[in-house]
Amino acid sequence: MGGELRQRHLRTQRRLRARAHRCRARDDPRAGHDPVRHDAFARAGLQLGPVSRFGQREQICLRASSGQEGRLVHLHAQRRWRERGERRVAPAASLSGVGPIGPIPIPRAGERATGTFTFAGDPGLEKYDWPYIALAGQVAGPTVLITAGIHAAEYTGIEAAIRLGRTIRPDSVRGTVVIIPVLNRPGFYERSIYVNPEDGDNLNRLFPGKADGSWGERFAHRLLTEIVTRCDHAIDRHAGDLVEDLVPFVIYRETGDPTRDAVIVRMANAYGAAWAVKSAPTGERPGSLYAVATLAGVAAILAESGGRGLLIEEDVERHVRGVTNILKTLGVLSGRVDAKAPTIVKSFDWVRSPVAGMFHCRVRVGQSVKARDLIGDVTDLVGEPIAAITAPVSGVVLFTVTSPAIKKDGLLLAIGAL
Amino acid sequence: MGGELRQRHLRTQRRLRARAHRCRARDDPRAGHDPVRHDAFARAGLQLGPVSRFGQREQICLRASSGQEGRLVHLHAQRRWRERGERRVAPAASLSGVGPIGPIPIPRAGERATGTFTFAGDPGLEKYDWPYIALAGQVAGPTVLITAGIHAAEYTGIEAAIRLGRTIRPDSVRGTVVIIPVLNRPGFYERSIYVNPEDGDNLNRLFPGKADGSWGERFAHRLLTEIVTRCDHAIDRHAGDLVEDLVPFVIYRETGDPTRDAVIVRMANAYGAAWAVKSAPTGERPGSLYAVATLAGVAAILAESGGRGLLIEEDVERHVRGVTNILKTLGVLSGRVDAKAPTIVKSFDWVRSPVAGMFHCRVRVGQSVKARDLIGDVTDLVGEPIAAITAPVSGVVLFTVTSPAIKKDGLLLAIGAL
Repeated sequence: MGGELRQRHLRTQRRLRARAHRCRARDDPRAGHDPVRHDAFARAGLQLGPVSRFGQREQICLRASSGQEGRLVHLHAQRRWRERGERRVAPAASLSGVGPIGPIPIPRAGERATGTFTFAGDPGLEKYDWPYIALAGQVAGPTVLITAGIHAAEYTGIEAAIRLGRTIRPDSVRGTVVIIPVLNRPGFYERSIYVNPEDGDNLNRLFPGKADGSWGERFAHRLLTEIVTRCDHAIDRHAGDLVEDLVPFVIYRETGDPTRDAVIVRMANAYGAAWAVKSAPTGERPGSLYAVATLAGVAAILAESGGRGLLIEEDVERHVRGVTNILKTLGVLSGRVDAKAPTIVKSFDWVRSPVAGMFHCRVRVGQSVKARDLIGDVTDLVGEPIAAITAPVSGVVLFTVTSPAIKKDGLLLAIGAL
Repeated sequence: MGGELRQRHLRTQRRLRARAHRCRARDDPRAGHDPVRHDAFARAGLQLGPVSRFGQREQICLRASSGQEGRLVHLHAQRRWRERGERRVAPAASLSGVGPIGPIPIPRAGERATGTFTFAGDPGLEKYDWPYIALAGQVAGPTVLITAGIHAAEYTGIEAAIRLGRTIRPDSVRGTVVIIPVLNRPGFYERSIYVNPEDGDNLNRLFPGKADGSWGERFAHRLLTEIVTRCDHAIDRHAGDLVEDLVPFVIYRETGDPTRDAVIVRMANAYGAAWAVKSAPTGERPGSLYAVATLAGVAAILAESGGRGLLIEEDVERHVRGVTNILKTLGVLSGRVDAKAPTIVKSFDWVRSPVAGMFHCRVRVGQSVKARDLIGDVTDLVGEPIAAITAPVSGVVLFTVTSPAIKKDGLLLAIGAL
C-alpha cells in the first residue's frame, strides 16, 4: 500500500474506531450484534461485520454508512468479560463454591460462564458437545436447571434459553442457574422432527434411560443422573415442533408429596399460560424429562410456546417472561410476579388418523370444540374423502399438526378436555 | 335389537337419509367433505362421518345436530360418477383416442379419470404408486402436464393440483390435462425437507436422470421419457419448503427457439406473480425438471407460492388461479386472463452461511435490500455473534430460510437482483 493511501486508510480506521467506542455498547463491541444493542451502532452510522478470533485477540469488521470500511481490534476481551461477570471457562473446572454440576463447570460467585460440555467416556455421546450457560449468584439459594431443544426444531425455547442466559445478571441471582439451550444436539442442524437422528427415537420418551442402552437411552441416563438430579428445580422449554402449532400451555405431574407438589404448582402458575395439563400419575406418555425428574425429587415442569419452526418474537418473549416469573417465584430473582394461574384441563386427548392421506384441519389452536364436532377430514392423494375426524371430547384445541401429510395412526391434534 | 327400538332406529335412518338427499350436493354425498360443499350438509343440520367402502357399496356415517346418528348407504357410486364425467380406471387402460401417456391412462373424451400409476419393471420404483388425475377434453388440443410435490413438503402446490383436478370440468377442456399432485412419493409421508429419502438427493437436481442410476436418477429418467416429453406444456408447482418462506415468483428458461420461448414467456406472464427468474442457459442449479423439460422441447415453467409447510388458503388459491390463467392462455380453457407480467430479476443470488449456528434473519420476503446491507446474523449456541450476513447484491428478497438451525455453508435466503 502506498504512503498516502496507507495514511488515508489509517485515518479511516481511527475515525471508525472512535465512532464505535462512542456507542453505548462500548463494553463489548460484539454486543452490537444483539438486536437490542445493534441500535447503538446503527445510530453511529456503523454496520458490524463478522467477528474473527485469533487467540486472545478479536477483530470485528465495521462499515460506515458512507461506505468506508475498517476493523475494530478488540484486544482486551478477557479483562472486559471479567468486568461484566462473564468468562469462558474450560470444561470440568470449578470456579465457585458450588462445585461442578456433572460435566458443567460453575463459575465463581457473581459470575457467568458459557461454553460446551460432553459426556466423557462414551464415544457415541462424545461425538457431540452441548452448549451451556451457568450463572452463579453471590447469595446461596436453589439450583435451577433450564433446558430446551429436546425436540430439536422447537426453536422458541432454544432462543429464549440463550436470551435468558445472556440477560440475567449473575449478581442478581440467589443460588445457581444452569441453562442447556439445545438438548437434542444430533438433531439440531439436521432439523429433525420429533426424534433424535442417532437412533430415530423421541428423546422425551426415554427417561430415565439406561446406562448401556441406545444413544438416546444413554443420553437420558447421563443427563438425568449427572445433571438433572443435582438440581432443585427444572424447567424444560418446548414449542410446537416443525409441523405443529399450539396455544401456550404448561404440563406438570404431581407426586403425592404435598410440599414438593405445592412448589411445582407455584412454578406452573407463575409461567402465565392460559392452560395447564396435569399428567396422570401413571403417565400416558411415559419417559418425559419433566415427569421423571419430578419422580426423582426435582420440582419440574414443561412449558410450551410457539411452533412451526418459526422464531416468532412474541413466542420467544413469552418463554423469557414465563421463566423469569418462575425464577422470581422461587426467589432466585427478585421482583413481583404478575401471572394468572392457568385453567387445568381434565385430560390431554391426542387425536390420530385412522388412514394415511392429506389432513385438512378445520379448527384453530385455542378454539373450543364439542365432543363429536367435525374437526377435520382426510382425503387420499387425488382428493377423495376417506375419513372425517371428529372431536373425542369437549374442550380446547391445545395443538394441531400443520403438515397435511399424515400416515395411518399419525398425530392430528390434541384437545384439552374441559 | 328389540322390535320397537328397531322401528325407531329405522325411522331415524329414513329421516337422516331424506335430509341428506335434500342437500345441494346430492349427486355425491362424499362431496360433503369438500370444504365448499360441506356447507350444504351443515345447513341440513348434518355432520358427515368416515366413509367405508365394501366393493361397489359405500357407507357414510351421518350425525344430526340433535345427536341422532345413522348411515347413508350409497349404492350407485359408479353410475353417479359416470354421470359427473368421472370414473376410476385401472392403470394402463386407455379410454380415449389420445392413448395412455406412459403409465397414465387417459379417459374417454369429455371424462375425468383418477387413480394411481407406477413405473413397472423397476422394483425400487414399483414400491410406490403415484396419484394422477387425467382430464380428456371433447375437442382436440394440446396436452398439459401439471406436477407438484417434487419437494414433498411444498403442500400448497400439491393441494392446488388436487383442487384443479377435481374442479376443472372435462367437457370444458380443449386437449388433455394430466395432473400428478405428488412427485416425491417416498418423501411425502416422511415430510422430507428438500430431498427424497430413498437416496437423500434433491429430485429437482437430477434431471434428465439415468436409466441405471440411483433411485432418484431412475425416477427422473422414467418421468421425463415416459410422461413429460409426451406433453406439449408442463407446469411444476412449488412452494417454500418446510423451512422456507417466499414471495410468489415464477422461473423459466429460454431455449433460443423464438416460437417456443414466446409460449414459455406467455405462460410465465399469465401466472400472475410479481417476480420472475429467467435462469441462465448454462444453469446455475442444473437438473431441474422445468429446465430439462424445456430443453427436451416442452414449454415448461416452475411456479412458487406459499411455504413453511402450511396450507394457507391464499397461497393455494394463487396456484389454482395462476395455473387456470396459464390453461386459458394456452386455449385449453376458455376465458379472459387478467394477470400482470412479472418483473424479471437480473440474477437469483442464494446467500449461504460461512459458519454453523443460529441464524437470525433481519429481512422479510418481498423486502428491498441494498448491496452490503446487514440482512441477518449468526450466533453460536450460547448466543455469541459469529457472523454478520450482508446482501451480496441490491434487489428483492425472494425467499428466506425460516429455521434458525444452519450448517456451515447452509442456505439462508435468496435475493433477486434488480
